[in-house]
Amino acid sequence: MSYNTYRHEDELKATIQTLTHGTAARRMCHLHLGSEPLPNWEMIGDIITLCRSLIFPGFFGNDDVNAFSLEYRIGIECEQLKSALENQILAGLCIEQKSRTEAETISLQNRAEDIAQQFINRLPDIRQVMHTDVEAMYDGDPAAVSHEEVIYCYPAIRAILNYRVAHELLLLGVPIIPRMITEAAHCETGIDIHPAATIGERFAIDHGTGVVIGATAIIGRNVKIYQGVTLGAKSFDCDADGNPVKGVPRHPIVGDNVIIYSNSSILGRIRIGDNAVIGGNMWVTSDVPDGEMIVQHH
Amino acid sequence: MSYNTYRHEDELKATIQTLTHGTAARRMCHLHLGSEPLPNWEMIGDIITLCRSLIFPGFFGNDDVNAFSLEYRIGIECEQLKSALENQILAGLCIEQKSRTEAETISLQNRAEDIAQQFINRLPDIRQVMHTDVEAMYDGDPAAVSHEEVIYCYPAIRAILNYRVAHELLLLGVPIIPRMITEAAHCETGIDIHPAATIGERFAIDHGTGVVIGATAIIGRNVKIYQGVTLGAKSFDCDADGNPVKGVPRHPIVGDNVIIYSNSSILGRIRIGDNAVIGGNMWVTSDVPDGEMIVQHH
Amino acid sequence: MSYNTYRHEDELKATIQTLTHGTAARRMCHLHLGSEPLPNWEMIGDIITLCRSLIFPGFFGNDDVNAFSLEYRIGIECEQLKSALENQILAGLCIEQKSRTEAETISLQNRAEDIAQQFINRLPDIRQVMHTDVEAMYDGDPAAVSHEEVIYCYPAIRAILNYRVAHELLLLGVPIIPRMITEAAHCETGIDIHPAATIGERFAIDHGTGVVIGATAIIGRNVKIYQGVTLGAKSFDCDADGNPVKGVPRHPIVGDNVIIYSNSSILGRIRIGDNAVIGGNMWVTSDVPDGEMIVQHH
Amino acid sequence: MSYNTYRHEDELKATIQTLTHGTAARRMCHLHLGSEPLPNWEMIGDIITLCRSLIFPGFFGNDDVNAFSLEYRIGIECEQLKSALENQILAGLCIEQKSRTEAETISLQNRAEDIAQQFINRLPDIRQVMHTDVEAMYDGDPAAVSHEEVIYCYPAIRAILNYRVAHELLLLGVPIIPRMITEAAHCETGIDIHPAATIGERFAIDHGTGVVIGATAIIGRNVKIYQGVTLGAKSFDCDADGNPVKGVPRHPIVGDNVIIYSNSSILGRIRIGDNAVIGGNMWVTSDVPDGEMIVQHH
Amino acid sequence: MSYNTYRHEDELKATIQTLTHGTAARRMCHLHLGSEPLPNWEMIGDIITLCRSLIFPGFFGNDDVNAFSLEYRIGIECEQLKSALENQILAGLCIEQKSRTEAETISLQNRAEDIAQQFINRLPDIRQVMHTDVEAMYDGDPAAVSHEEVIYCYPAIRAILNYRVAHELLLLGVPIIPRMITEAAHCETGIDIHPAATIGERFAIDHGTGVVIGATAIIGRNVKIYQGVTLGAKSFDCDADGNPVKGVPRHPIVGDNVIIYSNSSILGRIRIGDNAVIGGNMWVTSDVPDGEMIVQHH
Amino acid sequence: MSYNTYRHEDELKATIQTLTHGTAARRMCHLHLGSEPLPNWEMIGDIITLCRSLIFPGFFGNDDVNAFSLEYRIGIECEQLKSALENQILAGLCIEQKSRTEAETISLQNRAEDIAQQFINRLPDIRQVMHTDVEAMYDGDPAAVSHEEVIYCYPAIRAILNYRVAHELLLLGVPIIPRMITEAAHCETGIDIHPAATIGERFAIDHGTGVVIGATAIIGRNVKIYQGVTLGAKSFDCDADGNPVKGVPRHPIVGDNVIIYSNSSILGRIRIGDNAVIGGNMWVTSDVPDGEMIVQHH
Repeated sequence: MSYNTYRHEDELKATIQTLTHGTAARRMCHLHLGSEPLPNWEMIGDIITLCRSLIFPGFFGNDDVNAFSLEYRIGIECEQLKSALENQILAGLCIEQKSRTEAETISLQNRAEDIAQQFINRLPDIRQVMHTDVEAMYDGDPAAVSHEEVIYCYPAIRAILNYRVAHELLLLGVPIIPRMITEAAHCETGIDIHPAATIGERFAIDHGTGVVIGATAIIGRNVKIYQGVTLGAKSFDCDADGNPVKGVPRHPIVGDNVIIYSNSSILGRIRIGDNAVIGGNMWVTSDVPDGEMIVQHH
Repeated sequence: MSYNTYRHEDELKATIQTLTHGTAARRMCHLHLGSEPLPNWEMIGDIITLCRSLIFPGFFGNDDVNAFSLEYRIGIECEQLKSALENQILAGLCIEQKSRTEAETISLQNRAEDIAQQFINRLPDIRQVMHTDVEAMYDGDPAAVSHEEVIYCYPAIRAILNYRVAHELLLLGVPIIPRMITEAAHCETGIDIHPAATIGERFAIDHGTGVVIGATAIIGRNVKIYQGVTLGAKSFDCDADGNPVKGVPRHPIVGDNVIIYSNSSILGRIRIGDNAVIGGNMWVTSDVPDGEMIVQHH
Repeated sequence: MSYNTYRHEDELKATIQTLTHGTAARRMCHLHLGSEPLPNWEMIGDIITLCRSLIFPGFFGNDDVNAFSLEYRIGIECEQLKSALENQILAGLCIEQKSRTEAETISLQNRAEDIAQQFINRLPDIRQVMHTDVEAMYDGDPAAVSHEEVIYCYPAIRAILNYRVAHELLLLGVPIIPRMITEAAHCETGIDIHPAATIGERFAIDHGTGVVIGATAIIGRNVKIYQGVTLGAKSFDCDADGNPVKGVPRHPIVGDNVIIYSNSSILGRIRIGDNAVIGGNMWVTSDVPDGEMIVQHH
Repeated sequence: MSYNTYRHEDELKATIQTLTHGTAARRMCHLHLGSEPLPNWEMIGDIITLCRSLIFPGFFGNDDVNAFSLEYRIGIECEQLKSALENQILAGLCIEQKSRTEAETISLQNRAEDIAQQFINRLPDIRQVMHTDVEAMYDGDPAAVSHEEVIYCYPAIRAILNYRVAHELLLLGVPIIPRMITEAAHCETGIDIHPAATIGERFAIDHGTGVVIGATAIIGRNVKIYQGVTLGAKSFDCDADGNPVKGVPRHPIVGDNVIIYSNSSILGRIRIGDNAVIGGNMWVTSDVPDGEMIVQHH
Repeated sequence: MSYNTYRHEDELKATIQTLTHGTAARRMCHLHLGSEPLPNWEMIGDIITLCRSLIFPGFFGNDDVNAFSLEYRIGIECEQLKSALENQILAGLCIEQKSRTEAETISLQNRAEDIAQQFINRLPDIRQVMHTDVEAMYDGDPAAVSHEEVIYCYPAIRAILNYRVAHELLLLGVPIIPRMITEAAHCETGIDIHPAATIGERFAIDHGTGVVIGATAIIGRNVKIYQGVTLGAKSFDCDADGNPVKGVPRHPIVGDNVIIYSNSSILGRIRIGDNAVIGGNMWVTSDVPDGEMIVQHH
Repeated sequence: MSYNTYRHEDELKATIQTLTHGTAARRMCHLHLGSEPLPNWEMIGDIITLCRSLIFPGFFGNDDVNAFSLEYRIGIECEQLKSALENQILAGLCIEQKSRTEAETISLQNRAEDIAQQFINRLPDIRQVMHTDVEAMYDGDPAAVSHEEVIYCYPAIRAILNYRVAHELLLLGVPIIPRMITEAAHCETGIDIHPAATIGERFAIDHGTGVVIGATAIIGRNVKIYQGVTLGAKSFDCDADGNPVKGVPRHPIVGDNVIIYSNSSILGRIRIGDNAVIGGNMWVTSDVPDGEMIVQHH
């Protein structure tokens, strides 16, 4: 719209050169071997939609499914899911093994295909455990009107479903994609569950914004947590260079039937005993015995 | 891309069968009467956009509105809103009454149309009260530059607008859709207000992420709350089966001119008196007298 | 779908009239001078995408960039960014100066173009400092697998990048758009950083949902904060009319190498000394000396 | 962008009034009974795509069909086709019967559903005859490389397919939609076949632009025509008012194995005998005996 | 997907250089003054859709118009049309006057706005004459079922409407855009009418593919032509350089009530008398008296 | 919308079975080796757009190109074109060699990449010859206003450009894709040029609808043809089975400076001498001497 686009032509060219050739460019830029793209957020989104649709047909994805078309739709969606997973798992594996021969590439393709199929084989079990999560969430919320409302409207269902899908992929050795799947739920719901966490059935989260569950956390069955709860690390061991040592268990173990109210932080490799209740806004850094209830005093 | 898509053909077919015919499928799957879809998230999104555009013309939806075109645009948008609401309210009513005669279906259609019109009749009043919310938010925030910035940039405006729209629909007896409308705002802003809550005029939320306001909460006029504040239930009565009794008042009553700072939890059917101030990171489970200020001591 | 759309024709017309001509309409409606639109959320989204793509080529925006095409893509994206910025900055400047002559309009166009170019000149430095943020986040998180994972998956990177971009635009005198850019990140990540805050290099946020950093906060280098942390105002001076005085420093100054754990609130113009550590769920309203560690006792 | 959008405000308002209330508006405007839309070009496009995909799987519509997914895809597409056809056939039937009771509306719905199913039952036969058309077109064109090329690249295949689909719908009593389907092919290929024409198997059209085949034309088997050929009416009987009488046979009958070269016009209810050959640029208005070859002399 | 994208890097760079800097580039490339774009095909498409919708409400554009919403929709569409026309007419005027002062640019903007309004003022008359075209096409076609079918399905209606719109713009002095509008219809229908031609009311084209009507043709009222008819130039005077002299009348004058059958060519500045009938496949290069019928003899 | 979707369930299932398992399905269905798709119409469309944009920058594709950005845009577009061509050429080669080893697949990939680069190397020459076509079309049309109008508005430019691109790909041994590219132009313009035809520089087509140029036609320089002209085969030799023999020269050779007026058919391997003029609606099946003018007598 301006009358002279090029008043700043020299400056613009200089910046383009700096951004292209500056040393930082090389470190920050994802350098590709033959233009291989990273796993793609949009395709990860498609994978999530397909998983949700296969686990809760009629609620997510294909909203006009019916008894007649159910098998056809599940057939198509399984095939689409397999194809999308193969493609994205391969992209993930290629990050880990950037320099490789053609034979190694073909081997990675086969591995991606195998993993995709193994994941799909796990879908009926994921659906089964999600079923228990829905029941737990309905049973525990006086405001819940129906199972349908829980599945369709509760953000925690979407966050837990993404976690359960991501956790299976992580167990199958898939890099980066599990993290992308739980981050997608984090962005959508404010619930941040690390895909490496271990979580039992009948898991309920109410409201959920601000929940954080760390990578080495272990959660029993029938646990319920509220918004703003952190199951985090208290501190971590550092190596000789002052960097944190990776892979050490550093998040809590939570027993069965535990309830943790809003905005409490449970930190470190401590154990919250079965049937314990943690009040809101608590800062807990040591073990809590079975059945104990702890609350803030003021 | 692989050379043999069908290495896993038998496994894939078996999984498709399990997902189609497994007992879980029938319980989890939304079973339709003649393919009736659930209310649709995309159309709910359109309804929200139309309401925002009608309440704040020029800020949301039709960004090129002007004095000449204002009436034409409002005319079209009211008609589009009526049509979309009729359609979605009918979908909601059909969930509640799945088995019905043709005459009952026609009766539901008429009811959906009546409710849609009654809601639209309420729009001028909703705009009026939103006006007070904008003023309160501008008056109370030293960082606010203009009313325009508040309407256009503050997520709390969008969350409160969705709540006020959803609350009217809930009062008119619409099922599930009010919840979807507030969940859409929860997803967008991290502010989770139950559509059944009662909230007075000049309501302000600052930042807002993590705010939770429960279904039976009652909030006076000129109240301001900060991010992470919960107006929740402390515990709930259970029936003989150990399930929570639904419909019991269990969230706080907050008086006029109250301020609640960040991350505090106000729990149970308690009363926060007029002009009270609650500091941050508090855990409050009993009444607070008028004009009292309570803060954390450490 | 109904058999008579016009049962409510009179009511609908009446509501359209009220929404068009009611006194509230005029105050709430963004009144345009010759149909000038507000800055546009969609174009702000494009600007954010272009900035992310220019700062981290291959991770955001153009996922098929490679060594061959890098310069071409950066060239095109710089030009697109300049054009989009000119357009949106002009829209922002027009809000501030609604009544003006044609000559003043042309002057605003030139100013918008100059600012756009000055911002682009700053991109290499923004990339440089983002580089330090990525390193800090990788170094401090035992769960981080690679720099690539941090850039691609950590929401805090996107929130900090938006902040750093918005902060530069704010320093160049651009109205409203900086706020829109950080609000976009707030919506996406739950992290709410005011564009006027001052933040040093090697800044890390873990998980991040619920973080709030106020307009006059000053943060040193190598600071790390966790989810739910507020750097807020404790109270603010009011003028004779009872309205808060704008522009007064009212948020904390945080020294170098400080760590603040989850859900803590640091409020008021206090100073957190270098190397201090603040535990989780704390409510801090007075200075903390250098090197001090404060935690909740229960 | 202009500084005063409203220089012409009065003129613009006057034109809007004239366009709304002028007498012509009422005659030209499709006046709806309760907002019923006409059949919709976009949905007709979907119906065409589904028919093409079901008749030539892998060539049109679902380009990644394979032996594994074939049944699933055909299942879904049949159901989608049935649903889209029901919807559009009902829209067509409603044009014919604008004033009706609720019971009559329900009766029309049932009729639309029955017709949709009857059409789908005809699909295998349509595929069978399309098969003969492909063979004829391959056999007769020295430039044809493969059956695949003919199906995928020859516009005549798409035009004939649309005609055969439209003809079946016309035989089932569907109004207006058959015409829309052949017009869609006319627009795409320049080949204009009236859906009421009768055309035998092994029908070939080469190049095709400008071909016109009238409503009462009857074409035998193994006929080939070239671009620009018209099978039209010579003149038509008029009634007392000087308007043409509708429904009278007025287009040619073409025998088996006939070839008609480019740009020739065959006009009136004449008979072109079996095995006849008509040269290019001919104007034929009387019967041609079996086996005769007629060409232009110059 | 290949393992080395850069085998041809040097060749690719060389071609990029040639395409950028070769002398041909400069001549072929539309060189912009400050990045002014040409009129845009997509916006021309929007203008066509708006004109069709305003002339035949309910048939094109807004398919859910009804008596209630008619005025609102026409209001919005008139305003959208005015805005789009202003923008595109300005782009067209800028081609003609590439070098100009800021004052001249503002003058062009005002001229574009005036022309846009003058065109909109002509819309009721365009609708009136289109009304006669629809009637003529219905009256003259035994296969026509209803006026609705003619408006909705006959490509000639769209071609003639585009011509009548383009002709008005050409009379108002708009460059290039009239040609784009008739070319859009040519592409859609195969009917090529030059916007400068003069055509009376009750104009009918049947089938239409291949029709060509030249720039200086003059056609009376109640004329009907069939597919493949050319009203063209026979030859044209050349200037001293051997180039054709522009602007000389060189196409036929066709009287009232004339019928011209398919594929005939009427060439040169000849006169076809009132009520004449020209048979198909004719080559006519001299005057035809009133009431004469000429046909091919073979 | 109906109350019982499944009235026809059995019929629908039966049809699905027939369409899936009928013998015709197997012959008509494109059977894939490991799900390899056919070349894709949408990607062919992208390839055409990129070629047009590279040959006429600023007219097609990137409408905001300018002197500053020209090289960047050409760089990106060349790379995109190379990538899209590699992909589609490979798809084409795979049709010809359905059964193959992994090594042969890699060899095809390399061949596709080489061909893509060789084609791109030819782009400057294609631009050069298109330049002569534009000049010829401007020089020969009294209605042409500017070179810009010819490039931007004349459908023949798009048809000839597609032909010239397709012809180069055909010379490089690419299967099926050249045909798809010229068919795309046929659909868009009504001009059907076989990619195997040979056409000299300064080639002009006026209006163009209905033009057909056969596979073995050879056209000199500075030739001009009008709408509806066919350069076709008169008849073709058949083999013992009665099928046409492929690959035999059977279309005309047209000398330099020839003009052929509208709707004439030139058929068979005849020679039209240099500088000859063929009138409209002619049927020519024998040689025409140099400089001869032949017209229809009536």
